[in-house]
Amino acid sequence: MHTVSEAVAQLLKEASLRVEEENTPLHDLLGRVLAESVVASIDVPPADNSAMDGYAFRYKDWTGPEKPLLVSNRIPAGISPQLLQAGTAARIFTGAEIPQGADTVVMQEHCVAQDNAVRIQKLPVHGANIRRRAQDVAIGQTVLNPGSRLRPQDVGLIASLGIASLKTYRRLKVAVISNGNELIEPGEPARPGQIYNSNRYLLIGLMNAWGFEVLDMGIAPDDPEAISTILEEAARNSDVIISSGGVSVGEEDHIRTVVSKLGGLDLWKVSIKPGKPFAYGHVQGTPLLGLPGNPSSVWVTCLIIARPYLLACQGIRDVEIVPLRQAALFSCKKSFRTEYLRVKSTHKGLECFPQQSSGVLLSAVWGDGLAVHPEGVEIQEGDEIEYLPYAFLI
Amino acid sequence: MHTVSEAVAQLLKEASLRVEEENTPLHDLLGRVLAESVVASIDVPPADNSAMDGYAFRYKDWTGPEKPLLVSNRIPAGISPQLLQAGTAARIFTGAEIPQGADTVVMQEHCVAQDNAVRIQKLPVHGANIRRRAQDVAIGQTVLNPGSRLRPQDVGLIASLGIASLKTYRRLKVAVISNGNELIEPGEPARPGQIYNSNRYLLIGLMNAWGFEVLDMGIAPDDPEAISTILEEAARNSDVIISSGGVSVGEEDHIRTVVSKLGGLDLWKVSIKPGKPFAYGHVQGTPLLGLPGNPSSVWVTCLIIARPYLLACQGIRDVEIVPLRQAALFSCKKSFRTEYLRVKSTHKGLECFPQQSSGVLLSAVWGDGLAVHPEGVEIQEGDEIEYLPYAFLI
Repeated sequence: MHTVSEAVAQLLKEASLRVEEENTPLHDLLGRVLAESVVASIDVPPADNSAMDGYAFRYKDWTGPEKPLLVSNRIPAGISPQLLQAGTAARIFTGAEIPQGADTVVMQEHCVAQDNAVRIQKLPVHGANIRRRAQDVAIGQTVLNPGSRLRPQDVGLIASLGIASLKTYRRLKVAVISNGNELIEPGEPARPGQIYNSNRYLLIGLMNAWGFEVLDMGIAPDDPEAISTILEEAARNSDVIISSGGVSVGEEDHIRTVVSKLGGLDLWKVSIKPGKPFAYGHVQGTPLLGLPGNPSSVWVTCLIIARPYLLACQGIRDVEIVPLRQAALFSCKKSFRTEYLRVKSTHKGLECFPQQSSGVLLSAVWGDGLAVHPEGVEIQEGDEIEYLPYAFLI
Repeated sequence: MHTVSEAVAQLLKEASLRVEEENTPLHDLLGRVLAESVVASIDVPPADNSAMDGYAFRYKDWTGPEKPLLVSNRIPAGISPQLLQAGTAARIFTGAEIPQGADTVVMQEHCVAQDNAVRIQKLPVHGANIRRRAQDVAIGQTVLNPGSRLRPQDVGLIASLGIASLKTYRRLKVAVISNGNELIEPGEPARPGQIYNSNRYLLIGLMNAWGFEVLDMGIAPDDPEAISTILEEAARNSDVIISSGGVSVGEEDHIRTVVSKLGGLDLWKVSIKPGKPFAYGHVQGTPLLGLPGNPSSVWVTCLIIARPYLLACQGIRDVEIVPLRQAALFSCKKSFRTEYLRVKSTHKGLECFPQQSSGVLLSAVWGDGLAVHPEGVEIQEGDEIEYLPYAFLI
């Protein structure tokens, strides 16, 4: 029996980068994983510039609030200003470059303009209201590292450095297969004994949310030859295969014997609840993650065990999550496996969905994250426990 | 001067649903906003079924661990079983329907099979290992409400109810405009005085991350007539216009006068740092949000002030975020405005980016959320303060 962290660590050891680098234009970078460092080739700001709408002047030229300075220049943002003549001021706007000869900017609210002159009523400190060249980012500075997934702010920073394209990793292509003879597709009428396939949509949703490309293989039929054909097609056309159901020790589970012939499959006993069994193997060289069939188990094992592996295959370097700690508004007896409780975070603490044993996704839909109930530990109301918001996991 | 919460509340009052309903197939539901309730029209599970691979039998038929029961039936998942003959057992698999006449399931590990009979070595409790009809979801139960954005688990639950399509709101179409004569596009060489346009990519990234459609209007030229043309085009072809820069009181800011002619624009003084000025108005009936020009200010005002408004226009009902509370690993003097500090969450608490005054996005890139520094409050190291992870905001 593996603990959850052993299983995750073991699987991460097995994980390798499964995707090539490709050049990606700026407007396609959101959500992509960097394959190179982002190093600034310019200073930001590129030159000293004004933090205010106001007047640029030489500090020592100020002789009093009633003494006007001639306004000899007007500098909107975007132009390259001329040298400021001594004893004069330049009308200047936010973001505009400070002219040579000026060393201070006064905000317009502290000035009185008249004709072509200005009286500075309130003298700022020497050097005030100037954003210095390179104060934010200097040439040569590394601002983003390979292996990070690009968020809106990252793409904004990349743009501000004048970069029009970057090397990223091609999106990981994941084949999704559902096993189970009892499964039918939503929209079809259900005969007695049949249930609607939800794992297909759950897994496709998760793969899409993680930025992967999906190869939707539908429901595998209950026939070894047909399963073999599907698995071989999936192996040829994807980087990783993920399947739900069909890998327990029950005699109705054909997929296990088929995969054993096409590569190899190990059943892992992981001390996770909900969650067993978990299978890891290969189909003609393509890794296969075999999740349980029960939707709640798929939910938890995919978020906790499959997620780090898949992200690592995509080239993401830091796959760990810093869990939050929040007060439990419930109590739990000791568990023999580490249990991932479907919970909801409120102002007062974590509420627990009453029916944790349920197989359906209602518990996951009701809440906004998982709370960790470590094996052998009793949770009492008010205890601070680990909480993993879905927003961190997806 | 508005407080931040006044500004958000005022703007939410102005917000109205800007999108129509449309029928959306199951495979396109991820990230979409529900326009109707999801009510179960079936029971889940649809019938009593086995939670285990094992044997279904009538509890009172067991007479001892050495007394075999004839295995009269074999029930894989997906078929409708026949009545179980009295005094016999049925081989049954996980998820398979319990036959009439059986009331208990024993797991196979507690049985010894021989020829066409089975000896139950360890009797489970009466009714064990049976998942009851409707125990997870009952006919008529509402499982999702209108106004919620669909996550992977929501789509999975919808599928498990056999639903093939739902009414959602059309994706909100947001026109993005950048103002600033000094702006050039990444990839082009920068002349002195010019800076690269990052707000365009930042805002497009945020709008995409929120699931909106983007109408990219590029950089507005520094000319009232051209601005007027762009604004009218944006108003005709989008639900909301969002712009950065160009709405301060500086005389270089043409957009304000142009919008005033085409509809109306109010400059709001909001006590937020970074962040002023913020403008709200209309262009020929289409709402316009005018953000500042400084990228850090765009970042904070867009996440804190624009986000709830935009989500409400998209039909999302609950736009509030429950902030986390974490220990500050830094101290801060009293501020006259509510400050949104760019921070990073660690195991020990919140670290603060040292250069909060910076205009560029490096502070947002470095961290993973915003910490709230309320106006008039001093933060001391170790104080628990409000923390809004970007994962909650985006």
